[in-house]
Amino acid sequence: MTRLSLNQITTKHWSLPEAVQGCVDAGVPAIGLWRDKVAEAGVAEAARLVRDAGLAVSTLCRGGFLTATGPEGRRAALAENLQALEEAAELGTDTLVLVAGGLPAGSRDLAGARSRVAELLAELAPHAGDFGVRLAIEPLHPMFCADRAVVSTLGQALDLAELFPVEQVGVVVDSYHVWWDPELERQIARAGERIASYQVCDWTLPLPADALLGRGHVGDGHIDFAALTAMVTQAGYTGWIEVEIFNEQVWRTAGDRTLRTMIDRHRAHVETS
Amino acid sequence: MTRLSLNQITTKHWSLPEAVQGCVDAGVPAIGLWRDKVAEAGVAEAARLVRDAGLAVSTLCRGGFLTATGPEGRRAALAENLQALEEAAELGTDTLVLVAGGLPAGSRDLAGARSRVAELLAELAPHAGDFGVRLAIEPLHPMFCADRAVVSTLGQALDLAELFPVEQVGVVVDSYHVWWDPELERQIARAGERIASYQVCDWTLPLPADALLGRGHVGDGHIDFAALTAMVTQAGYTGWIEVEIFNEQVWRTAGDRTLRTMIDRHRAHVETS
Repeated sequence: MTRLSLNQITTKHWSLPEAVQGCVDAGVPAIGLWRDKVAEAGVAEAARLVRDAGLAVSTLCRGGFLTATGPEGRRAALAENLQALEEAAELGTDTLVLVAGGLPAGSRDLAGARSRVAELLAELAPHAGDFGVRLAIEPLHPMFCADRAVVSTLGQALDLAELFPVEQVGVVVDSYHVWWDPELERQIARAGERIASYQVCDWTLPLPADALLGRGHVGDGHIDFAALTAMVTQAGYTGWIEVEIFNEQVWRTAGDRTLRTMIDRHRAHVETS
Repeated sequence: MTRLSLNQITTKHWSLPEAVQGCVDAGVPAIGLWRDKVAEAGVAEAARLVRDAGLAVSTLCRGGFLTATGPEGRRAALAENLQALEEAAELGTDTLVLVAGGLPAGSRDLAGARSRVAELLAELAPHAGDFGVRLAIEPLHPMFCADRAVVSTLGQALDLAELFPVEQVGVVVDSYHVWWDPELERQIARAGERIASYQVCDWTLPLPADALLGRGHVGDGHIDFAALTAMVTQAGYTGWIEVEIFNEQVWRTAGDRTLRTMIDRHRAHVETS
């Protein structure tokens, strides 16, 4: 489990100090941080905590939400993302996960929203370079297209990323969002060194009332993690593998138990050798 | 509304005679039939009813479910689809809608399931030709990939369809399933005369507990029907436009009222000129 990272949302009810201690106790070597948890602790204190614990910070979640219309919404999105880049640099991670954002309220202009994502990326990318942090565009499952992310496939994320230098803009391969894609093998191979993060959790059914919360532990659902991990490895990715689970039942479970399950599943299905 | 068709699932609680009468009363010139409703009436009687009413039968729903493993499952799927083709011919429609089927219970072999769809299509396609009925592969939204349809995009459906003569295998463009696709415009243009059916309903949020039932009347959600209809028209499609809504609230509404809404929305958003 040398490449395993706890994405902090998986133990949502742990504070940042608790999550850091949990990783240390369980022998998990890295953590993916969330901005709200970092803000609770304070950025400088959060950076000190993970550094003193000897943890790597695999990613900071998250920036993005780039689909606003009008100069004010655009300025606010830019400011927010510059702030996130600065935090990422201070926390010692090289990866800021970006969620594109959904359709603005009342809008049906999907093509327009997608164009605005590209425009704002163009403004952000040089700043990412200055901070030494890579913007990692995360395609979300198409069921989130209207309300959360108009970037829906790995191919589309790569079309965007490839407009910029590889050290400035990459992509996230999240099993939950991309497992269904008939183009997956081809697009992961194409991604190559654009892969900035590999996140895992399983597709379980039925979908819950809040579709955001339907993710399961690796091994509980329909995704073939051996095949997916082989594709990502074949593409040259050697970085952290983050477990990111949104699930009320997992969140109700004690954090240390969640980490034990996570580690067991990781050994059984992901990093098996 | 010269191209409007009522897909029978939209008025789920109407029997076939009620749906036929409802179309006649509302001036809707065509109907998409479901096999269970046809079976209730009897195929010959159903054929007589629609013919005597002067209605066109836009499609028969549905065949498919081609992902079973093993010779027995395969034989059963073939027999079922041959039966459906025969019914389609007797009902006077040239289009049998196919839903691919999901992963078999306990399987994570998505590539294998997809291969089996192609294999069974190869067995079915010549029979479709004999019956003068086209198999119309319907890509379903990726959120149904595990449990319902391993064909998830229009591009993937076309990759399958193009293996066969155009009069034997086509595709369905269903707004709900494809609206999010970054490749949509390109794939609809590519589809051209492969488009065997254009089905409409809207993407509304939140998704309900049963994700199958989240579809709304055209105009109630996030889909730009003017843009989508223009793409389908540009590709050369001049056939029926079926309204197919799975939604408990719509189903609880009196059928004649549903037809009035459907007609109003069709005029406002789809067939506007």
